[in-house]
Amino acid sequence: MIDAAGSRLAPVVRRTPLLRSPRLDAIAGRRVFVKAECLQHTGSFKFRGGWSALSGMPAGERKRGVLAYSSGNHAQGLALAARMHGVPAVIVMPTDTPGLKLSNTAACGAEIVRYDRVAESREALGERICRDRGLTLVRPYDEPLVIAGQASVGLELAQQATDEGLERADVLVPCGGGGLTAGIALALAERAPGLRPRTCEPAGFDDAARSLEAGERLANPAMSGSICDAIVTPMPGAVTFPVLRAHCGPGLVVTDAQCLHAMALAMVHLKVVLEPGGAVALASALFHPRSIDGDDVIVVASGGNADPEILRGALAETAIT
Amino acid sequence: MIDAAGSRLAPVVRRTPLLRSPRLDAIAGRRVFVKAECLQHTGSFKFRGGWSALSGMPAGERKRGVLAYSSGNHAQGLALAARMHGVPAVIVMPTDTPGLKLSNTAACGAEIVRYDRVAESREALGERICRDRGLTLVRPYDEPLVIAGQASVGLELAQQATDEGLERADVLVPCGGGGLTAGIALALAERAPGLRPRTCEPAGFDDAARSLEAGERLANPAMSGSICDAIVTPMPGAVTFPVLRAHCGPGLVVTDAQCLHAMALAMVHLKVVLEPGGAVALASALFHPRSIDGDDVIVVASGGNADPEILRGALAETAIT
Repeated sequence: MIDAAGSRLAPVVRRTPLLRSPRLDAIAGRRVFVKAECLQHTGSFKFRGGWSALSGMPAGERKRGVLAYSSGNHAQGLALAARMHGVPAVIVMPTDTPGLKLSNTAACGAEIVRYDRVAESREALGERICRDRGLTLVRPYDEPLVIAGQASVGLELAQQATDEGLERADVLVPCGGGGLTAGIALALAERAPGLRPRTCEPAGFDDAARSLEAGERLANPAMSGSICDAIVTPMPGAVTFPVLRAHCGPGLVVTDAQCLHAMALAMVHLKVVLEPGGAVALASALFHPRSIDGDDVIVVASGGNADPEILRGALAETAIT
Repeated sequence: MIDAAGSRLAPVVRRTPLLRSPRLDAIAGRRVFVKAECLQHTGSFKFRGGWSALSGMPAGERKRGVLAYSSGNHAQGLALAARMHGVPAVIVMPTDTPGLKLSNTAACGAEIVRYDRVAESREALGERICRDRGLTLVRPYDEPLVIAGQASVGLELAQQATDEGLERADVLVPCGGGGLTAGIALALAERAPGLRPRTCEPAGFDDAARSLEAGERLANPAMSGSICDAIVTPMPGAVTFPVLRAHCGPGLVVTDAQCLHAMALAMVHLKVVLEPGGAVALASALFHPRSIDGDDVIVVASGGNADPEILRGALAETAIT
């Protein structure tokens, strides 16, 4: 299934580069290889899962279109994949969605349906639209076709690691619901078993780390209050967690301040823009070196859809040398 | 000579991606393809010329090492290329060089010799060091091996344009001494004659545009006062100008404010960091659409070595939507 998704993605996906900087190596105390998935179409890896879902569903179903609940990266990834397939996409977004996310999603050609977070249920609204218009709901992570699409990051990493002569390394992955981590884990288990995936999360929203330690799915105490909004989810997915449990090392946890510092260092030394949730793995590599094994570490920089204000804040916060 | 340099570079250079964003297309009124050379080793295209010069010189000469006068991108590109060849590099830099440029160049393993801009002549100092230690001076643009290295950007662009189905387009190139533009022009003339190179410069430092119009090399009235420090040179090079004259369309000129706006849009929509001098071509594409021909435009984003302060300024200056 992963190979099939990879083949469907190959003609359209950006094969994102593996970036390095001598300064980051010096800070981390080992070689740091950064998979710059912020350079993917729509600014995050989510295009992969969206494309995989659309290209993998029966043609008759695809033709009627898709729907997602999301104000973020999954919305943009699915919307662009739908436009490239020439089929409708409806994105259900709260009325208080920031303007930049709204305009970026609209620029991908999606129809946006807004709802009041307090007065309305997005599930009820979305189900009604799906039923009325024959659309297929595409879930952001607990969906095998989506996981198979995200796994293409792992297929590319396996090849890029071989090209770099990397046989053993931790692979740090920003983890929300676990779709990206699970996909990468499955691809690496097959193609590069010396590369060990590990989840990275913001402090206070470390459901994956705690769940991995406990051996069962545990929920976060809250759903807001982190700058890493893109990777805050209630708990690891029912589909993704067994994969994480089978393949991942212990989870890593970073502070918001470490994320902002990593974002600034990525801008200055790698010349790429990361959003806070996309920077948790880089922050783990730079600021938790003793929690990582080996002479090399691979970091997935999963997305770059940050507002200008938060980029300014990151650049202001930290002394860069 | 260009093909040979391309072959020597192939195993080590980053083949930089051609990025796009629907929002930038909408602003420019045509499809905008951005060659993200800011993602090259050391953060600019200059690594290509440095590597070409080192790998192209006789082994005995190379072994003794190289020297450059530069506080900027050429210094870093040459220093890293020297380190990768295992030979010494001496970089002559003014004492008032900003800390970030100094530490980045030192991180590439170069020996830095500092001089007082007012009291000392860098040429006299450099010549003495070259003589004493048998080093070879590598000039930043008026050097055929360096131009042949920068031309590899054009070789890649010709292939990437073919992959995208682009047959006719203006190719906008940030222009200082003209090494990058000349290299790209020579490569495209051979490999993709429908792609027309054009120089891009900051207002007040538009020596290439004026020289192309006059048909002879004209100097800038000043050497400081632009935020685009990386591409401010006295006048087009003696070696590069005849190439520009033979192959380039009319030069384009942008304001500092347009550069900053383009930098902010690149961060938000392409997820890459550009320095002001690396953003002049993108600014030309976005803000001078009527000076450009055709449905598509290719932009070279030549470097990303910007200080955090100027990135913050760019993000603060402009309304991003």
